[in-house]
Amino acid sequence: MKARAVVLLSGGLDSSTTMAMAHEAGFDTYCMSFRYGQRHAHELLCAEKIALKMGAARHVVVDIDLRTFGGSALTADIDVPKDRLPADLGTGIPVTYVPARNTVFLSFALAWAEVLDSTDIFIGVNALDYSGYPDCRPDYIAAYEQMANLATRAGVEGVKPLKIHTPLIAMSKAEIIQEGLRLGVDYSLTISCYDPSASGLPCGSCDACQLRQKGFKQLGISDPALRSSVT
Amino acid sequence: MKARAVVLLSGGLDSSTTMAMAHEAGFDTYCMSFRYGQRHAHELLCAEKIALKMGAARHVVVDIDLRTFGGSALTADIDVPKDRLPADLGTGIPVTYVPARNTVFLSFALAWAEVLDSTDIFIGVNALDYSGYPDCRPDYIAAYEQMANLATRAGVEGVKPLKIHTPLIAMSKAEIIQEGLRLGVDYSLTISCYDPSASGLPCGSCDACQLRQKGFKQLGISDPALRSSVT
Repeated sequence: MKARAVVLLSGGLDSSTTMAMAHEAGFDTYCMSFRYGQRHAHELLCAEKIALKMGAARHVVVDIDLRTFGGSALTADIDVPKDRLPADLGTGIPVTYVPARNTVFLSFALAWAEVLDSTDIFIGVNALDYSGYPDCRPDYIAAYEQMANLATRAGVEGVKPLKIHTPLIAMSKAEIIQEGLRLGVDYSLTISCYDPSASGLPCGSCDACQLRQKGFKQLGISDPALRSSVT
Repeated sequence: MKARAVVLLSGGLDSSTTMAMAHEAGFDTYCMSFRYGQRHAHELLCAEKIALKMGAARHVVVDIDLRTFGGSALTADIDVPKDRLPADLGTGIPVTYVPARNTVFLSFALAWAEVLDSTDIFIGVNALDYSGYPDCRPDYIAAYEQMANLATRAGVEGVKPLKIHTPLIAMSKAEIIQEGLRLGVDYSLTISCYDPSASGLPCGSCDACQLRQKGFKQLGISDPALRSSVT
Protein backbone atom coordinates (compact mmCIF):
# COMPACT_ATOMS: atom_id res chain seq x y z
CA MET A 1 0.00 0.00 0.00
CA LYS A 2 1.28 3.45 -0.89
CA ALA A 3 1.73 6.08 1.79
CA ARG A 4 -0.97 8.73 1.93
CA ALA A 5 -0.41 12.43 1.44
CA VAL A 6 -2.86 15.29 1.93
CA VAL A 7 -2.54 17.78 -0.95
CA LEU A 8 -3.99 21.28 -0.79
CA LEU A 9 -5.54 21.68 -4.23
CA SER A 10 -6.89 25.07 -5.25
CA GLY A 11 -7.43 24.34 -8.93
CA GLY A 12 -4.54 26.59 -9.91
CA LEU A 13 -1.31 25.94 -11.74
CA ASP A 14 0.86 25.63 -8.63
CA SER A 15 -1.27 23.21 -6.63
CA SER A 16 -1.93 21.00 -9.66
CA THR A 17 1.80 20.71 -10.26
CA THR A 18 2.32 19.97 -6.58
CA MET A 19 -0.21 17.13 -6.79
CA ALA A 20 1.68 15.63 -9.74
CA MET A 21 4.92 15.86 -7.76
CA ALA A 22 3.30 14.09 -4.79
CA HIS A 23 2.32 11.26 -7.12
CA GLU A 24 5.84 11.07 -8.50
CA ALA A 25 7.18 10.92 -4.93
CA GLY A 26 5.13 7.75 -4.49
CA PHE A 27 2.08 8.93 -2.56
CA ASP A 28 -1.62 8.30 -2.91
CA THR A 29 -3.11 11.78 -2.85
CA TYR A 30 -5.97 12.95 -0.65
CA CYS A 31 -6.87 16.34 -2.08
CA MET A 32 -8.49 19.10 -0.11
CA SER A 33 -10.11 22.27 -1.45
CA PHE A 34 -11.96 25.02 0.36
CA ARG A 35 -15.14 26.94 -0.23
CA TYR A 36 -14.09 29.96 1.79
CA GLY A 37 -16.23 32.77 0.48
CA GLN A 38 -13.97 33.44 -2.47
CA ARG A 39 -15.44 35.75 -5.14
CA HIS A 40 -15.78 32.94 -7.63
CA ALA A 41 -16.28 29.23 -7.09
CA HIS A 42 -14.90 28.44 -10.55
CA GLU A 43 -11.59 27.30 -9.08
CA LEU A 44 -13.44 24.58 -7.17
CA LEU A 45 -14.77 23.22 -10.45
CA CYS A 46 -11.20 23.20 -11.77
CA ALA A 47 -9.96 21.44 -8.62
CA GLU A 48 -12.62 18.77 -9.02
CA LYS A 49 -11.68 18.10 -12.66
CA ILE A 50 -7.97 17.99 -11.85
CA ALA A 51 -8.46 15.62 -8.90
CA LEU A 52 -10.50 13.31 -11.11
CA LYS A 53 -8.20 13.44 -14.13
CA MET A 54 -5.01 13.03 -12.12
CA GLY A 55 -6.33 10.13 -10.06
CA ALA A 56 -6.73 11.45 -6.53
CA ALA A 57 -7.55 8.74 -3.98
CA ARG A 58 -10.12 11.17 -2.61
CA HIS A 59 -11.11 14.82 -3.00
CA VAL A 60 -12.96 16.78 -0.32
CA VAL A 61 -14.23 20.35 -0.40
CA VAL A 62 -14.37 21.88 3.06
CA ASP A 63 -16.82 24.66 3.78
CA ILE A 64 -15.41 27.48 5.84
CA ASP A 65 -16.41 31.10 5.93
CA LEU A 66 -13.58 33.58 6.03
CA ARG A 67 -16.10 36.27 5.07
CA THR A 68 -17.08 36.41 8.74
CA PHE A 69 -13.88 38.44 9.11
CA GLY A 70 -13.59 40.23 5.76
CA GLY A 71 -10.39 42.15 5.23
CA SER A 72 -9.34 40.82 1.82
CA ALA A 73 -10.09 41.62 -1.81
CA LEU A 74 -10.54 37.91 -2.45
CA THR A 75 -13.38 37.55 0.04
CA ALA A 76 -14.71 41.07 0.64
CA ASP A 77 -15.99 43.93 -1.49
CA ILE A 78 -12.60 45.38 -2.33
CA ASP A 79 -11.48 45.66 -5.97
CA VAL A 80 -8.83 43.20 -7.12
CA PRO A 81 -5.87 45.33 -8.28
CA LYS A 82 -5.20 45.13 -12.01
CA ASP A 83 -2.21 45.88 -14.21
CA ARG A 84 0.28 46.35 -11.39
CA LEU A 85 3.70 47.04 -12.82
CA PRO A 86 5.98 43.97 -12.94
CA ALA A 87 8.36 45.68 -10.52
CA ASP A 88 5.55 45.95 -7.97
CA LEU A 89 4.64 42.26 -7.97
CA GLY A 90 6.04 40.65 -4.86
CA THR A 91 6.55 43.95 -3.04
CA GLY A 92 4.47 44.71 0.03
CA ILE A 93 1.41 42.72 1.05
CA PRO A 94 -1.37 43.22 -1.49
CA VAL A 95 -5.08 43.62 -0.68
CA THR A 96 -5.68 40.14 -2.14
CA TYR A 97 -3.94 38.68 0.92
CA VAL A 98 -6.46 36.65 2.92
CA PRO A 99 -5.74 36.84 6.68
CA ALA A 100 -4.11 33.65 7.92
CA ARG A 101 -5.43 31.71 4.93
CA ASN A 102 -2.63 29.19 4.59
CA THR A 103 -2.62 28.72 8.36
CA VAL A 104 -6.33 27.89 8.28
CA PHE A 105 -5.91 25.61 5.24
CA LEU A 106 -2.90 23.77 6.68
CA SER A 107 -4.76 23.27 9.95
CA PHE A 108 -7.58 21.45 8.18
CA ALA A 109 -4.99 19.44 6.24
CA LEU A 110 -3.34 18.55 9.55
CA ALA A 111 -6.64 17.34 10.99
CA TRP A 112 -7.30 15.17 7.94
CA ALA A 113 -3.75 13.84 7.87
CA GLU A 114 -4.08 12.73 11.45
CA VAL A 115 -7.31 10.86 10.73
CA LEU A 116 -5.78 9.26 7.60
CA ASP A 117 -2.65 8.23 9.51
CA SER A 118 -0.70 10.33 7.05
CA THR A 119 2.44 12.23 7.99
CA ASP A 120 2.77 14.12 4.69
CA ILE A 121 1.10 17.34 3.62
CA PHE A 122 1.80 19.00 0.27
CA ILE A 123 1.23 22.71 -0.34
CA GLY A 124 2.16 24.60 -3.50
CA VAL A 125 3.50 27.75 -1.90
CA ASN A 126 6.18 29.62 -3.75
CA ALA A 127 8.57 32.21 -2.40
CA LEU A 128 9.97 33.38 -5.74
CA ASP A 129 7.26 34.24 -8.27
CA TYR A 130 4.70 35.02 -5.62
CA SER A 131 2.49 37.88 -4.62
CA GLY A 132 4.17 38.92 -1.37
CA TYR A 133 2.03 36.95 1.07
CA PRO A 134 3.73 36.36 4.45
CA ASP A 135 2.41 32.79 4.69
CA CYS A 136 4.30 31.65 1.57
CA ARG A 137 7.80 31.97 3.01
CA PRO A 138 10.12 29.10 3.99
CA ASP A 139 10.52 30.21 7.61
CA TYR A 140 6.75 30.29 8.01
CA ILE A 141 6.46 26.73 6.68
CA ALA A 142 9.26 25.51 8.96
CA ALA A 143 7.53 27.07 11.98
CA TYR A 144 4.22 25.52 10.95
CA GLU A 145 5.81 22.09 10.70
CA GLN A 146 7.35 22.43 14.14
CA MET A 147 4.01 23.47 15.65
CA ALA A 148 2.17 20.65 13.85
CA ASN A 149 4.47 18.08 15.37
CA LEU A 150 3.56 19.31 18.83
CA ALA A 151 -0.16 19.54 18.05
CA THR A 152 -0.90 15.94 17.23
CA ARG A 153 -0.76 12.38 18.44
CA ALA A 154 2.37 11.94 16.34
CA GLY A 155 4.08 14.63 18.39
CA VAL A 156 3.10 13.02 21.66
CA GLU A 157 3.43 9.37 20.82
CA GLY A 158 6.67 9.62 18.93
CA VAL A 159 5.74 8.07 15.60
CA LYS A 160 7.10 9.39 12.29
CA PRO A 161 7.13 13.20 12.35
CA LEU A 162 4.82 15.17 10.13
CA LYS A 163 6.36 16.82 7.09
CA ILE A 164 5.02 19.85 5.21
CA HIS A 165 6.23 19.39 1.62
CA THR A 166 6.69 22.56 -0.42
CA PRO A 167 8.28 21.27 -3.63
CA LEU A 168 7.69 24.56 -5.51
CA ILE A 169 9.03 26.91 -2.89
CA ALA A 170 12.26 27.88 -4.66
CA MET A 171 11.13 27.40 -8.28
CA SER A 172 10.35 30.10 -10.81
CA LYS A 173 6.95 30.01 -12.49
CA ALA A 174 8.62 28.83 -15.70
CA GLU A 175 10.37 25.98 -13.85
CA ILE A 176 7.09 24.96 -12.23
CA ILE A 177 5.34 24.81 -15.62
CA GLN A 178 8.21 22.87 -17.15
CA GLU A 179 8.10 20.30 -14.34
CA GLY A 180 4.31 20.04 -14.58
CA LEU A 181 4.44 19.46 -18.34
CA ARG A 182 7.02 16.72 -17.82
CA LEU A 183 4.65 15.07 -15.33
CA GLY A 184 1.68 15.39 -17.68
CA VAL A 185 -0.30 18.12 -15.92
CA ASP A 186 -3.09 19.41 -18.17
CA TYR A 187 -2.85 23.15 -17.56
CA SER A 188 -5.95 23.80 -19.65
CA LEU A 189 -7.91 22.58 -16.62
CA THR A 190 -6.28 25.02 -14.20
CA ILE A 191 -7.16 28.58 -13.32
CA SER A 192 -4.90 31.07 -11.56
CA CYS A 193 -6.90 34.30 -11.95
CA TYR A 194 -8.11 36.22 -8.86
CA ASP A 195 -11.02 37.70 -10.80
CA PRO A 196 -12.21 35.52 -13.70
CA SER A 197 -15.31 36.10 -15.80
CA ALA A 198 -18.54 34.28 -14.96
CA SER A 199 -17.63 31.61 -17.52
CA GLY A 200 -14.21 31.12 -15.95
CA LEU A 201 -11.99 33.07 -18.32
CA PRO A 202 -8.96 34.72 -16.68
CA CYS A 203 -8.90 38.53 -16.54
CA GLY A 204 -5.31 38.65 -17.79
CA SER A 205 -4.27 41.59 -15.67
CA CYS A 206 -4.35 40.65 -11.97
CA ASP A 207 -1.09 39.68 -10.24
CA ALA A 208 -1.78 35.96 -10.59
CA CYS A 209 -2.52 36.25 -14.32
CA GLN A 210 0.62 38.31 -14.90
CA LEU A 211 2.86 35.84 -13.04
CA ARG A 212 1.37 32.94 -14.99
CA GLN A 213 1.75 34.67 -18.34
CA LYS A 214 5.37 35.51 -17.54
CA GLY A 215 6.06 31.83 -16.86
CA PHE A 216 4.59 30.56 -20.12
CA LYS A 217 6.26 33.39 -22.03
CA GLN A 218 9.69 32.50 -20.65
CA LEU A 219 9.19 28.96 -21.93
CA GLY A 220 8.07 30.25 -25.31
CA ILE A 221 4.78 28.38 -25.19
CA SER A 222 1.21 29.55 -24.97
CA ASP A 223 -1.03 29.01 -21.95
CA PRO A 224 -3.50 26.22 -22.82
CA ALA A 225 -6.06 27.77 -20.47
CA LEU A 226 -6.22 30.79 -22.78
CA ARG A 227 -7.09 28.59 -25.76
CA SER A 228 -9.93 26.71 -24.10
CA SER A 229 -12.64 28.00 -21.85
CA VAL A 230 -12.49 25.81 -18.76
CA THR A 231 -16.19 25.52 -18.06
CA MET B 1 -9.90 52.94 23.34
CA LYS B 2 -9.13 49.58 24.89
CA ALA B 3 -6.99 47.05 23.05
CA ARG B 4 -8.88 44.22 21.43
CA ALA B 5 -8.42 40.55 22.24
CA VAL B 6 -9.88 37.53 20.49
CA VAL B 7 -11.13 35.01 23.06
CA LEU B 8 -11.93 31.41 22.17
CA LEU B 9 -15.17 30.81 24.06
CA SER B 10 -16.60 27.30 24.19
CA GLY B 11 -19.26 27.88 26.81
CA GLY B 12 -17.32 25.86 29.38
CA LEU B 13 -15.86 26.71 32.74
CA ASP B 14 -12.31 27.26 31.51
CA SER B 15 -13.03 29.56 28.55
CA SER B 16 -15.51 31.64 30.55
CA THR B 17 -12.89 32.22 33.24
CA THR B 18 -10.37 33.07 30.54
CA MET B 19 -12.74 35.69 29.15
CA ALA B 20 -13.07 37.27 32.60
CA MET B 21 -9.27 37.33 32.92
CA ALA B 22 -8.98 39.04 29.51
CA HIS B 23 -11.35 41.74 30.75
CA GLU B 24 -9.34 42.17 33.92
CA ALA B 25 -6.18 42.51 31.83
CA GLY B 26 -7.82 45.52 30.16
CA PHE B 27 -9.05 44.16 26.85
CA ASP B 28 -12.27 44.48 24.93
CA THR B 29 -13.16 40.89 24.11
CA TYR B 30 -14.09 39.54 20.67
CA CYS B 31 -15.39 36.08 21.40
CA MET B 32 -15.32 33.23 18.93
CA SER B 33 -17.16 29.93 19.14
CA PHE B 34 -17.38 27.07 16.65
CA ARG B 35 -20.15 24.90 15.32
CA TYR B 36 -17.88 22.02 14.40
CA GLY B 37 -20.14 19.01 14.29
CA GLN B 38 -20.01 18.43 18.03
CA ARG B 39 -22.60 15.99 19.36
CA HIS B 40 -24.54 18.68 21.12
CA ALA B 41 -24.94 22.34 20.31
CA HIS B 42 -25.92 23.17 23.87
CA GLU B 43 -22.48 24.60 24.59
CA LEU B 44 -23.05 27.23 21.87
CA LEU B 45 -26.15 28.40 23.70
CA CYS B 46 -24.05 28.68 26.87
CA ALA B 47 -21.33 30.59 24.99
CA GLU B 48 -23.92 33.04 23.69
CA LYS B 49 -25.36 33.69 27.15
CA ILE B 50 -21.91 34.10 28.69
CA ALA B 51 -20.73 36.50 25.95
CA LEU B 52 -23.85 38.61 26.48
CA LYS B 53 -23.78 38.58 30.28
CA MET B 54 -20.06 39.27 30.51
CA GLY B 55 -20.12 42.11 27.99
CA ALA B 56 -18.26 40.85 24.93
CA ALA B 57 -17.63 43.54 22.31
CA ARG B 58 -18.72 40.93 19.75
CA HIS B 59 -19.45 37.22 19.59
CA VAL B 60 -19.23 35.18 16.39
CA VAL B 61 -20.01 31.53 15.80
CA VAL B 62 -17.97 30.08 12.97
CA ASP B 63 -19.30 27.12 11.02
CA ILE B 64 -16.73 24.47 10.26
CA ASP B 65 -17.20 20.80 9.72
CA LEU B 66 -14.65 18.55 11.36
CA ARG B 67 -17.03 15.64 10.76
CA THR B 68 -15.67 15.49 7.21
CA PHE B 69 -12.71 13.76 8.85
CA GLY B 70 -14.31 11.91 11.77
CA GLY B 71 -11.90 10.23 14.14
CA SER B 72 -13.17 11.55 17.49
CA ALA B 73 -15.84 10.61 20.00
CA LEU B 74 -16.88 14.27 20.16
CA THR B 75 -17.75 14.44 16.47
CA ALA B 76 -18.21 10.85 15.30
CA ASP B 77 -20.26 7.86 16.37
CA ILE B 78 -17.90 6.66 19.08
CA ASP B 79 -19.12 6.39 22.70
CA VAL B 80 -17.85 9.03 25.11
CA PRO B 81 -15.99 7.12 27.86
CA LYS B 82 -17.66 7.28 31.25
CA ASP B 83 -16.49 6.71 34.81
CA ARG B 84 -12.80 6.48 34.01
CA LEU B 85 -10.83 6.02 37.19
CA PRO B 86 -9.29 9.26 38.52
CA ALA B 87 -5.81 7.78 38.00
CA ASP B 88 -6.57 7.38 34.28
CA LEU B 89 -7.57 10.99 33.67
CA GLY B 90 -4.73 12.77 31.92
CA THR B 91 -3.00 9.55 30.84
CA GLY B 92 -2.81 8.71 27.14
CA ILE B 93 -4.83 10.48 24.47
CA PRO B 94 -8.53 9.74 24.93
CA VAL B 95 -10.99 9.08 22.09
CA THR B 96 -12.61 12.45 22.81
CA TYR B 97 -9.54 14.12 21.29
CA VAL B 98 -10.54 15.99 18.13
CA PRO B 99 -7.74 15.95 15.53
CA ALA B 100 -5.93 19.28 15.39
CA ARG B 101 -8.90 21.03 16.96
CA ASN B 102 -7.06 23.75 18.85
CA THR B 103 -4.86 24.33 15.80
CA VAL B 104 -7.95 24.87 13.65
CA PHE B 105 -9.59 27.10 16.28
CA LEU B 106 -6.46 29.19 16.86
CA SER B 107 -6.08 29.64 13.11
CA PHE B 108 -9.53 31.19 12.81
CA ALA B 109 -8.74 33.33 15.86
CA LEU B 110 -5.54 34.43 14.14
CA ALA B 111 -7.43 35.42 11.00
CA TRP B 112 -9.94 37.45 13.00
CA ALA B 113 -7.22 39.04 15.13
CA GLU B 114 -5.47 40.22 12.01
CA VAL B 115 -8.64 41.81 10.65
CA LEU B 116 -9.36 43.45 14.03
CA ASP B 117 -5.79 44.78 14.31
CA SER B 118 -5.52 42.77 17.48
CA THR B 119 -2.30 41.13 18.64
CA ASP B 120 -3.82 39.22 21.54
CA ILE B 121 -5.55 35.84 21.52
CA PHE B 122 -6.82 34.16 24.68
CA ILE B 123 -7.35 30.42 24.93
CA GLY B 124 -8.32 28.52 28.08
CA VAL B 125 -6.05 25.52 27.67
CA ASN B 126 -4.84 23.83 30.79
CA ALA B 127 -1.93 21.46 31.18
CA LEU B 128 -2.65 20.35 34.73
CA ASP B 129 -6.25 19.18 35.24
CA TYR B 130 -6.72 18.28 31.60
CA SER B 131 -7.68 15.28 29.55
CA GLY B 132 -4.34 14.47 27.95
CA TYR B 133 -4.77 16.32 24.65
CA PRO B 134 -1.46 17.12 22.92
CA ASP B 135 -2.64 20.58 21.84
CA CYS B 136 -3.06 21.81 25.42
CA ARG B 137 0.65 21.78 26.32
CA PRO B 138 2.86 24.85 26.85
CA ASP B 139 5.39 23.85 24.18
CA TYR B 140 2.60 23.49 21.63
CA ILE B 141 1.31 26.98 22.45
CA ALA B 142 4.81 28.47 22.22
CA ALA B 143 5.32 26.87 18.80
CA TYR B 144 1.92 28.13 17.64
CA GLU B 145 2.79 31.66 18.69
CA GLN B 146 6.08 31.53 16.83
CA MET B 147 4.36 30.26 13.68
CA ALA B 148 1.60 32.87 13.97
CA ASN B 149 4.13 35.67 14.04
CA LEU B 150 5.55 34.47 10.73
CA ALA B 151 2.11 33.93 9.18
CA THR B 152 0.76 37.42 9.32
CA ARG B 153 1.32 41.02 8.33
CA ALA B 154 2.56 41.63 11.86
CA GLY B 155 5.35 39.14 11.27
CA VAL B 156 6.34 40.76 8.01
CA GLU B 157 5.83 44.40 8.79
CA GLY B 158 7.38 44.35 12.22
CA VAL B 159 4.55 45.74 14.33
CA LYS B 160 3.80 44.46 17.84
CA PRO B 161 4.14 40.66 17.91
CA LEU B 162 1.13 38.45 18.37
CA LYS B 163 0.69 36.86 21.79
CA ILE B 164 -1.26 33.69 22.61
CA HIS B 165 -2.43 34.15 26.19
CA THR B 166 -3.02 30.98 28.22
CA PRO B 167 -3.73 32.31 31.71
CA LEU B 168 -5.04 28.94 32.96
CA ILE B 169 -2.25 26.76 31.70
CA ALA B 170 -0.62 26.02 35.07
CA MET B 171 -3.68 26.32 37.30
CA SER B 172 -5.61 23.49 38.97
CA LYS B 173 -9.34 23.29 38.34
CA ALA B 174 -9.98 24.53 41.87
CA GLU B 175 -7.69 27.54 41.32
CA ILE B 176 -9.47 28.34 38.05
CA ILE B 177 -12.88 28.27 39.75
CA GLN B 178 -11.60 30.39 42.63
CA GLU B 179 -10.23 33.02 40.22
CA GLY B 180 -13.46 32.97 38.18
CA LEU B 181 -15.61 33.47 41.28
CA ARG B 182 -13.42 36.40 42.32
CA LEU B 183 -14.01 37.93 38.86
CA GLY B 184 -17.76 37.33 39.02
CA VAL B 185 -18.11 34.50 36.50
CA ASP B 186 -21.56 32.94 36.71
CA TYR B 187 -20.73 29.25 36.45
CA SER B 188 -24.40 28.32 36.37
CA LEU B 189 -24.31 29.44 32.72
CA THR B 190 -21.38 27.21 31.79
CA ILE B 191 -21.28 23.61 30.67
CA SER B 192 -18.24 21.33 30.64
CA CYS B 193 -19.83 17.94 29.88
CA TYR B 194 -18.85 16.00 26.73
CA ASP B 195 -22.22 14.26 26.62
CA PRO B 196 -25.05 16.27 28.21
CA SER B 197 -28.73 15.39 28.12
CA ALA B 198 -31.00 16.97 25.50
CA SER B 199 -31.97 19.65 28.03
CA GLY B 200 -28.32 20.46 28.74
CA LEU B 201 -27.78 18.63 32.03
CA PRO B 202 -24.25 17.27 32.52
CA CYS B 203 -23.84 13.46 32.57
CA GLY B 204 -21.65 13.62 35.67
CA SER B 205 -19.36 10.80 34.64
CA CYS B 206 -17.30 11.81 31.58
CA ASP B 207 -13.73 13.07 32.07
CA ALA B 208 -14.79 16.73 31.85
CA CYS B 209 -17.56 16.29 34.43
CA GLN B 210 -15.22 14.47 36.80
CA LEU B 211 -12.51 17.15 36.57
CA ARG B 212 -15.08 19.88 37.17
CA GLN B 213 -16.62 18.11 40.16
CA LYS B 214 -13.18 17.59 41.65
CA GLY B 215 -12.49 21.32 41.40
CA PHE B 216 -15.69 22.39 43.14
CA LYS B 217 -15.28 19.67 45.76
CA GLN B 218 -11.76 20.85 46.64
CA LEU B 219 -13.17 24.32 47.27
CA GLY B 220 -15.96 22.86 49.39
CA ILE B 221 -18.68 24.48 47.29
CA SER B 222 -21.34 23.01 45.04
CA ASP B 223 -21.40 23.48 41.28
CA PRO B 224 -24.11 26.05 40.45
CA ALA B 225 -24.67 24.33 37.08
CA LEU B 226 -25.92 21.27 38.95
CA ARG B 227 -28.47 23.32 40.84
CA SER B 228 -29.98 25.01 37.79
CA SER B 229 -30.74 23.55 34.40
CA VAL B 230 -28.97 25.83 31.92
CA THR B 231 -31.64 25.87 29.24
